[in-house]
Amino acid sequence: MITSTSNNNIKNIVQLNNSSKARREQNAFAAEGVKMFMEAPLPCIKEVYISEGLLDKVNIAARYDDKNDEAQLLKKCALKLKETGYTDVSDQVFKKMSDTLTPQGILTVVMEKRHKLNELLLSKDRSDIHVLILENLQDPGNLGTIIRTAEAAGYDFILANEGTVDMYNPKVIRSTMGSIYRVPVVYSGDLRGDIGRLKAKGVKVLAAHLKGTRSYREVDAGSRTAVMIGNEGSGLSDETAALADEYVKIPMKGEVESLNAAVAAALMMYST
Amino acid sequence: MITSTSNNNIKNIVQLNNSSKARREQNAFAAEGVKMFMEAPLPCIKEVYISEGLLDKVNIAARYDDKNDEAQLLKKCALKLKETGYTDVSDQVFKKMSDTLTPQGILTVVMEKRHKLNELLLSKDRSDIHVLILENLQDPGNLGTIIRTAEAAGYDFILANEGTVDMYNPKVIRSTMGSIYRVPVVYSGDLRGDIGRLKAKGVKVLAAHLKGTRSYREVDAGSRTAVMIGNEGSGLSDETAALADEYVKIPMKGEVESLNAAVAAALMMYST
Repeated sequence: MITSTSNNNIKNIVQLNNSSKARREQNAFAAEGVKMFMEAPLPCIKEVYISEGLLDKVNIAARYDDKNDEAQLLKKCALKLKETGYTDVSDQVFKKMSDTLTPQGILTVVMEKRHKLNELLLSKDRSDIHVLILENLQDPGNLGTIIRTAEAAGYDFILANEGTVDMYNPKVIRSTMGSIYRVPVVYSGDLRGDIGRLKAKGVKVLAAHLKGTRSYREVDAGSRTAVMIGNEGSGLSDETAALADEYVKIPMKGEVESLNAAVAAALMMYST
Repeated sequence: MITSTSNNNIKNIVQLNNSSKARREQNAFAAEGVKMFMEAPLPCIKEVYISEGLLDKVNIAARYDDKNDEAQLLKKCALKLKETGYTDVSDQVFKKMSDTLTPQGILTVVMEKRHKLNELLLSKDRSDIHVLILENLQDPGNLGTIIRTAEAAGYDFILANEGTVDMYNPKVIRSTMGSIYRVPVVYSGDLRGDIGRLKAKGVKVLAAHLKGTRSYREVDAGSRTAVMIGNEGSGLSDETAALADEYVKIPMKGEVESLNAAVAAALMMYST
């Protein structure tokens, strides 16, 4: 059992939590919580850390057959831990590794997948494509919620410029509620070029925009659609907005100047 | 100018930021930022604090006629400060008063409005009523986003149980982007009784629920509608969900078990 916070593995987890550079160098990210452990695909799991407190509970749940939801979940957790292996750490060390105020006691180091647009377009030979395009989105909670909503709305993948917050930031991961493992995100060094590549594939690009005339509900988007969402404060840059095939309007009453980015993305994705 | 963080007024602002009890006792809350100052209704403003750094900028903007957006905003800010009066504080003291990492340098103490359901129903003699009902919503960012979206969707007011996070929490206020001043929120000690009172007024109560069969898009809600949204983790309690006139479904693809509460609220409010 690891009992010292100066242990090198523990120091490395803190790095993975705090530095997107460290994550990129190691091709890995840290995902906290029982749900994130249970949903992590087996081949992608590199390491698992569990606190002594949670390990006790897991062992008890494995031994007895309590029917309540928590005990059942911990029982499944015990089975998966047998497959993955794990390192146990003291509760105090776990607190140090955790990015949350109330740590759940389990942390999974998962291999990152960095996707490329070409691969996703090639692997996607069905006739319908739905892509969400993000430019300079900054809030980790917004990005996490957007990834979760994209999966629910049946969007295929997300294309983000490099100015968008890193998807493997711990706050993003938490707000995805597991969708991080299932929705591919492409970080593009050439967003406008890549939007052009989508358009060349027959994808119609929509932007929610104050200049829009038709309501987002009236737009018949067709089977190949992309929706663009910009920065929380300043929206889309003029240059990127100019690439849209159509500006659409999300009606707003009262004195509201704009909607939260995740809300605008949800309304647009669910209507297309 | 206040230069000491042990000044009693400054200590009081820290209290208003951190304690809902203090806010309730004083019938006041602290709203940070230029936008929140500019949108605060004059009769509700109790005190204004401004950092020396921002005051310098405001004075310069007031003296010259620079056409850029920031200068124009600060010019309007100078005019409003003349009407409200203000207390200037050192930048270091302002940091102490601020709930944010990058303080904007202005904080407004605003009188709280605690609304009652009866008053809102009486003042609302138009034939249409749209109410959002919240039960045990916990995340301040979610509540703020929901208040902002409610205004944009034309909802009349929010009815929340007392287990819902306090709307005057600084994080809630910030995420409303000003809608906090315009969307009435009723905190109810008897949510189920109050839902009954709405139903007696002919309001049809909808809940997004896994048991729902009709899609939220197909529901013809009519002109008197309420939408219920529950806790982020556990949803609506069974007892409250049982009061719904209809369960509706928000379709979800992939392995998503639920949507973010603010996203679900947005989809439901925008479709009714």
